[in-house]
Amino acid sequence: MLTMQDALLALTRYWTEQGCMVVQPMNTEVGAGTLNPATALRVLGPEPWRVAYVEPSVRPDDSRYGDNPNRLQTHTQFQVILKPEPGDPQELYLGSLRALGIDIDRHDVRFVEDNWASPALGAWGLGWEVWLDGLEITQFTYFQQAGGMTLDPVSVEITYGMERIIMALQGVDHFKDIAYAPGISYGEAFGQAEYEMSRYYLDDADVAAQRGLFEAYAAEADRLVEARLPVPAHTYVLKCSQAFNVLDSRGAISTTERAQAFARMRRLAHSVAKLWVERRAELGYPLGGVDVPPAGAVAAQSPQSGTDQTLAFEIGVEELPPAETTRAADAVRQALTEKLAATRLRHGSVTVMSSPRRIVALVEDIAPREDDDEQTVRGPRLSAAYDADGAPTRAAQGFARGQGIDVAELAPLSAGGGEYVGYVKHVPGRPAGEVLATILPEIVTGLRAEKNMRWRSPGLSYSRPIRWITALLGAEVVPFTVADLASGRSSRVHRTAAEPVITLSTATGYVETLRRHAIEPDAAVRRDDIVAQAARLAASAGGRIDFEAESALVDEVTNLVEAPVAILGTFDEKYLELPAAILTTVMKKHQRYFPVMDGDGRLLNRFVTIANGACDHDAVRAGNGAVLRARYEDAGFFWRNDLATPLAEMKERLARLTFETRLGSVAERADRIAAIASDLAARVRLGGDDAETLRQAGRLAKFDLGSELVIELSSLAGVMAREYARQAGEPDAVAEALYEMELPRQAGDTLPRSRPGALLALADRFDLLAGLFAIGSEPTGSSDPFGLRRAALGVINILRAHPGLEGLTLREALAIAASHQPVPTDARLPGQVLDFVRRRFEQLMLEQGHPAANIRAVAGLVDSPVRAERTLDHLAVLSKTPDFQELEAAVQRIRRIIPAGATPGYDPALFDSPAEEALATALEKAHAGLRGEGDLRRFAAEAAVVVHPVTVFFDEVLVMADDPAVRANRLGLLAAVHDLAAGYLDWKELS
Amino acid sequence: MLTMQDALLALTRYWTEQGCMVVQPMNTEVGAGTLNPATALRVLGPEPWRVAYVEPSVRPDDSRYGDNPNRLQTHTQFQVILKPEPGDPQELYLGSLRALGIDIDRHDVRFVEDNWASPALGAWGLGWEVWLDGLEITQFTYFQQAGGMTLDPVSVEITYGMERIIMALQGVDHFKDIAYAPGISYGEAFGQAEYEMSRYYLDDADVAAQRGLFEAYAAEADRLVEARLPVPAHTYVLKCSQAFNVLDSRGAISTTERAQAFARMRRLAHSVAKLWVERRAELGYPLGGVDVPPAGAVAAQSPQSGTDQTLAFEIGVEELPPAETTRAADAVRQALTEKLAATRLRHGSVTVMSSPRRIVALVEDIAPREDDDEQTVRGPRLSAAYDADGAPTRAAQGFARGQGIDVAELAPLSAGGGEYVGYVKHVPGRPAGEVLATILPEIVTGLRAEKNMRWRSPGLSYSRPIRWITALLGAEVVPFTVADLASGRSSRVHRTAAEPVITLSTATGYVETLRRHAIEPDAAVRRDDIVAQAARLAASAGGRIDFEAESALVDEVTNLVEAPVAILGTFDEKYLELPAAILTTVMKKHQRYFPVMDGDGRLLNRFVTIANGACDHDAVRAGNGAVLRARYEDAGFFWRNDLATPLAEMKERLARLTFETRLGSVAERADRIAAIASDLAARVRLGGDDAETLRQAGRLAKFDLGSELVIELSSLAGVMAREYARQAGEPDAVAEALYEMELPRQAGDTLPRSRPGALLALADRFDLLAGLFAIGSEPTGSSDPFGLRRAALGVINILRAHPGLEGLTLREALAIAASHQPVPTDARLPGQVLDFVRRRFEQLMLEQGHPAANIRAVAGLVDSPVRAERTLDHLAVLSKTPDFQELEAAVQRIRRIIPAGATPGYDPALFDSPAEEALATALEKAHAGLRGEGDLRRFAAEAAVVVHPVTVFFDEVLVMADDPAVRANRLGLLAAVHDLAAGYLDWKELS
Repeated sequence: MLTMQDALLALTRYWTEQGCMVVQPMNTEVGAGTLNPATALRVLGPEPWRVAYVEPSVRPDDSRYGDNPNRLQTHTQFQVILKPEPGDPQELYLGSLRALGIDIDRHDVRFVEDNWASPALGAWGLGWEVWLDGLEITQFTYFQQAGGMTLDPVSVEITYGMERIIMALQGVDHFKDIAYAPGISYGEAFGQAEYEMSRYYLDDADVAAQRGLFEAYAAEADRLVEARLPVPAHTYVLKCSQAFNVLDSRGAISTTERAQAFARMRRLAHSVAKLWVERRAELGYPLGGVDVPPAGAVAAQSPQSGTDQTLAFEIGVEELPPAETTRAADAVRQALTEKLAATRLRHGSVTVMSSPRRIVALVEDIAPREDDDEQTVRGPRLSAAYDADGAPTRAAQGFARGQGIDVAELAPLSAGGGEYVGYVKHVPGRPAGEVLATILPEIVTGLRAEKNMRWRSPGLSYSRPIRWITALLGAEVVPFTVADLASGRSSRVHRTAAEPVITLSTATGYVETLRRHAIEPDAAVRRDDIVAQAARLAASAGGRIDFEAESALVDEVTNLVEAPVAILGTFDEKYLELPAAILTTVMKKHQRYFPVMDGDGRLLNRFVTIANGACDHDAVRAGNGAVLRARYEDAGFFWRNDLATPLAEMKERLARLTFETRLGSVAERADRIAAIASDLAARVRLGGDDAETLRQAGRLAKFDLGSELVIELSSLAGVMAREYARQAGEPDAVAEALYEMELPRQAGDTLPRSRPGALLALADRFDLLAGLFAIGSEPTGSSDPFGLRRAALGVINILRAHPGLEGLTLREALAIAASHQPVPTDARLPGQVLDFVRRRFEQLMLEQGHPAANIRAVAGLVDSPVRAERTLDHLAVLSKTPDFQELEAAVQRIRRIIPAGATPGYDPALFDSPAEEALATALEKAHAGLRGEGDLRRFAAEAAVVVHPVTVFFDEVLVMADDPAVRANRLGLLAAVHDLAAGYLDWKELS
Repeated sequence: MLTMQDALLALTRYWTEQGCMVVQPMNTEVGAGTLNPATALRVLGPEPWRVAYVEPSVRPDDSRYGDNPNRLQTHTQFQVILKPEPGDPQELYLGSLRALGIDIDRHDVRFVEDNWASPALGAWGLGWEVWLDGLEITQFTYFQQAGGMTLDPVSVEITYGMERIIMALQGVDHFKDIAYAPGISYGEAFGQAEYEMSRYYLDDADVAAQRGLFEAYAAEADRLVEARLPVPAHTYVLKCSQAFNVLDSRGAISTTERAQAFARMRRLAHSVAKLWVERRAELGYPLGGVDVPPAGAVAAQSPQSGTDQTLAFEIGVEELPPAETTRAADAVRQALTEKLAATRLRHGSVTVMSSPRRIVALVEDIAPREDDDEQTVRGPRLSAAYDADGAPTRAAQGFARGQGIDVAELAPLSAGGGEYVGYVKHVPGRPAGEVLATILPEIVTGLRAEKNMRWRSPGLSYSRPIRWITALLGAEVVPFTVADLASGRSSRVHRTAAEPVITLSTATGYVETLRRHAIEPDAAVRRDDIVAQAARLAASAGGRIDFEAESALVDEVTNLVEAPVAILGTFDEKYLELPAAILTTVMKKHQRYFPVMDGDGRLLNRFVTIANGACDHDAVRAGNGAVLRARYEDAGFFWRNDLATPLAEMKERLARLTFETRLGSVAERADRIAAIASDLAARVRLGGDDAETLRQAGRLAKFDLGSELVIELSSLAGVMAREYARQAGEPDAVAEALYEMELPRQAGDTLPRSRPGALLALADRFDLLAGLFAIGSEPTGSSDPFGLRRAALGVINILRAHPGLEGLTLREALAIAASHQPVPTDARLPGQVLDFVRRRFEQLMLEQGHPAANIRAVAGLVDSPVRAERTLDHLAVLSKTPDFQELEAAVQRIRRIIPAGATPGYDPALFDSPAEEALATALEKAHAGLRGEGDLRRFAAEAAVVVHPVTVFFDEVLVMADDPAVRANRLGLLAAVHDLAAGYLDWKELS
């Protein structure tokens, strides 16, 4: 049996053989190996660096007294840094798994997108979780930025989670059962420390003392930056971070404090990083510099056109994120099509496919050469081309010489109204290979993803490293280079294949060749295959998979594998006692498994996972099953603890969670939400059962934030409230309202259906907006830690879904919310929040396709978003009708003539023309028809009567009469007409 | 080449093969691997534990900016704990050296006494430094106590100093040149950190912040002890310790603060240790318990006496401290002789020898058996033994039966004036083997050293573990067991010998056998051998060794080896530029080398080291030379820095060194010493050149405490002051006075010769005494951190050496010193200090052999210790003379009769007898002869005239006359006589 210490030694040995230096763990508490200066500082600057080390990583928040089988306040990371990234880090990594005795041919090893960012460090990178039979065993990251500094060269960071790996290898279910050393278990060696440090972090650490330490450490770090000593400064940044983490695990950090502390630590980390880089430069880079990889070299070979005129073009990448796999195919298809179109190369169909490791373009029937072309080349003016004798001037001769033609070949031509001499030049088409050798590299360099990274290849930037390029035109290589890569005829198949690199003899049959090597490049085929395999397995277990509901998951899984192999797994039936939402959330979100239902839609104790390629099914099934069991054990542990806890007790825990220093605890916020909802309910005259439901749900508002399960799986907030409320015997309506108050959780999410739920959800968001604006914490730039933008959108969408609440204006709702805040609020606050909501509304309407001008015209109505949107809808229809166009023209004509501040109103006694009389009569008629109510459509209908009188008025009446009283009277009349229209739209915006 | 990381891996591998678990370094700064809980806590309690780990050990005080080739603020320890100690840890350790690729057969590996104690941890142990060719590479300790708790079982702690080992193995002179990993040097990897952390620890750490941290950590540790969480509590104790070390390296810790901080940390460490032990018990000792080694088993074999009647008795030990080696031989000689004398076993000569690894007793001509003996056994009283008929009574019969004899064998006997019956019992002697089997184990168990330890053998306690017992009487084993050891016929020779365990066939020729195996058990022979070999080598280099001066060193070296092999080494001539005191201090004190001089006593660049047994002389010479070079590089580095520093600047540095919080900096203390010395000089009317010398030396007082060399080698304080003062061009007398002011440095040390030197030395000590008493920090129990006892003895000895200063009384000198203190002093202070000095004086005089009564009699004179001692000397002589005895008798007679408070004085008019007249006359004569001056001898001479008159007075005069006036007059006369004597002695004490 491989003990934990054997494993650490095996990894140490393996990586030293790969040229890594071994250093010791950091001698102050760190949350991850990344924080050790051997990573955090060494990845900066130009010096090469290869290092491997063990890092006991302290996560106070993961403290569980040693009870939880999978979670420890101190877990053991094995950390590797390869700087610069060596071009084949995944292969090196797989070698390390072999060094651990893992037979990777039997197991399902996958690289699953996982990007990493540490705001506290100003650091980020792109990469993967590495899964071994569904178990995350390693974090693999191309480090792009650290300490706020862009990294050049890029390092690869490989972080092994040792406890997980060893638990899987030893087949034990609890970390305490790990054989750590011969004859001594993990629990025997570290169980007591795990318990006691958990006690410390969760219960006993002195909050005031830790705050003091945080300040002292930060001050010391500042001083050391001043003193230009990055090494000790970094140490104090780490100490800061640990103090912060302890405070956090003690529940003593509010959201605002968190943001402030992060900003401070980020600033410090940046100063330290900058200083380190400067100091290394001053020291003359003791470890030297990194060689840029040489440009790729193409085998000297001139492209020749044979009879096979198919292009097979493959861009080989390290595992792309699923979304990028699809996006890449689209982008390459578009680029290739456009670029080919810009040439004169005739070709047949273009097919583009993609998988996690390749983007493939196949073009058929490519012409051997481009078509030839003729271009007219313009020379000097005709008048200057020949002298009086008709002999070519020096200008004409010079032009002909420059073009390499005889002067006699020049002929007159007309252009732009002038007369010139010129000639028609014959442009022969280039050979197909030459054309493609120009286009294809542009496609490679043009690849861009949502998030892009750099790696060793100079100048390239993409979602993940591009590692090879296959480009065959028939049997010949299309020769080009991109950075350090040269096109060629080899491709790569499974890393565990007997022959992982294959050579293609010809472009034709490319897909078949890949399939022969068990690679399916076509996503559509893979998708169908996955559905078919999974459905078959589900059926074999007497169940089915709801592929329609899981469509997004199928899409994702399709892009996680190149050779889908469905495997049916089971889990212990006892876990079915847990709510299905928990089980499926874990399966889908964490594990990308398909849940299997029976005919009645009830969850079975089965799952289907899709492995990548041939493997030992039993081993992979067992591994994935063990992972699920561990996750369910976790969840069940929390679930049972929660069920044993009265709702009131969970609710009480909220008092210990700080929401925001000035805005109090989460408990206080929950109380405010209840109070605001109650006020809103009174405003909309909520009565009967709904009123009682609102009262009861308000009393319990947010209680599930005090449940262990939601603390663990925060996406289940609301869902668990409903569940726990039901289990505790609360009425269904109350349970439902508690669920609905969390809706919508993200864009496109379900909205509350009940009125109590809607009012609670609104109260939640109004409280958030009013409170945060009151303390001046409105979002700035891209920073929106409290999700105020989402809250504003939620308000709009909830109101849109509840026409019955239209009577509620935002301004009054916000005034109510403001009145419940524990801090002084300004009278201008509702207006400020309204402006904020208006911008969200405008954005939303733009996304829905409304013209910007229309949106601006109704923006003033956003106090009732529903009314504003309805106006917008009416406007969309009306603005296409001639009647409305005339009406609008009339209103605009008036708007332009009346001065700012003109008082509406008139004295009929001062009229001196029938046109005035007629307009006044029409206006009164319109007024009577509208009676101050109605929407834009009704306005358009009722106000149509004024259109003609307005036209006549302007034709017959001189507004600017000499008599000031008459003039004022006429302007007053027009202003009255305008006033009638002004409440429906901001007409100015339409002009 | 073995890189540093290879070496760490090799050790890790080796020790895991010995069953050690591997853990990670502590994730908070620690000063040594011992502090890691894997040692500090795990050595406590009954559970077994074997562990090995790397520990980067932070010693802020060792910061040197990376400049010093051998000293680092963070050095790398490799730490091993074997609990319980396995019985052969030295052998296991030697195996680890082999695992490092060290050919220990070629090298000189020695175990040199080094006991370890950490007051801050309440921990201590006994053991060795392991030397490899003179280089200390490992600390090897039998851990006896930790956290104030006695350890049972005892652990072995092995701590490798990796940088030193690797520097030696790689043959590099600077730690930065160590090949750490392939292609990367230590300096490249850690040079910047070494510089920056040095900057932090020496210059930049914020003192106030660190004080705050110390307090915060200590408070947290206290709280965690309260909460019964020893693991996090221990972490905070470690953090305390680091904060303390940082403060210390910043020079911010005064002696008092140090004592307080240590007391606090010790108390905390004890609480944590106690709590850990309790908690482990509560947890039911998860790692189980330790088996007690089984009692030794002797091969079944009955001792038989052959013709060879020699006893060879060898107690085999691990390397004893040199002083214990000698002491052990004496103790065994005495015990064996006494115990044999208590038997009736006749024997020839007893020879006892010892070496570091064995104590050997050889006894010749042992009789085959004890002599027989006859004992008279007393029965009942004769009167009760026979009835009237003369027949034996039941009492007599019962007695005879009880003794197993016939009643007829009883005969009358007289005892204690009574008549009894009884008989003479014949006691046959036991066989010699049986006698020895009783005596020898008692000798083993009776062994005791100055400091004793326990190891695995239950019940044994000695300086170092006893590992084997050889006991042969002729060809037979004397069979007995002691704890887990059984006597036998095997012995051990060199651990690297081809056959390290040898079997002895017979006791005769024991010494020759050992010699054949290159072991010399006889210290006298070894000593002669060392002197002869070393002298020969010195001569071969044209030099000589002053063996007389180095007598103590020869004695020490004699007991460091079993097979002395002298090796002549050289060092670079350039180091001869350093003062000889530095060179020889390093050679003798640190390395136990003999310095070699030329005929004129000038140091040559040669040394002689004594290796233990056969080795590769070139390798050992090279190793020892490299060690010396490293040490001289260190010293030279400091020396040159110091020479480049003006004396004033060194002196200025004293302002940064706190002497004692309330008593100010070392600079302030130096100023006080100068001022006090000046006042004392005025008091003794020091004039001329001496006064000027005193002034100039006072100005520079203690400046060398600011020199780097003295900070490093504190034993050179004073020596370097003289050296640097001379180099700076100060007058010789000033330089000498600066040296002398530090004298005496320890008991038996040289004393100041010049008066300026003596006055400065006195001022130094008076300042110390007055200051510390003023703040209530007088020594208590065995704690005397400021060395006040030594200071008091110094005062006495300086005054004894300077009769010219006799006029100076302690009381007035202390009043002067008190007047210069920066704190308020009590008028009683000189008296208190005087009491303290008196106790030292009494102790000193006792040690010099004066009778306690005499000492008490002169103790009152200690205000002038010289006078007190002179009186004591006189008393010693006088008290043997009849004249003085009579005089004393007279004084005592008077003393006993006069009441307390009798007023001396008389009125001759009231005399009414010639005896009174005669006494008064004699008294006046004595007074006239003494004139209030003189010492006891003069008193004895002059006062002799009163002896006879006193006798006559008492014979003829009734002191207690009826007339009160006459009575008072007579008592007054006697009181006057007594008064004359009282100033010379406290006569009461002599009675």
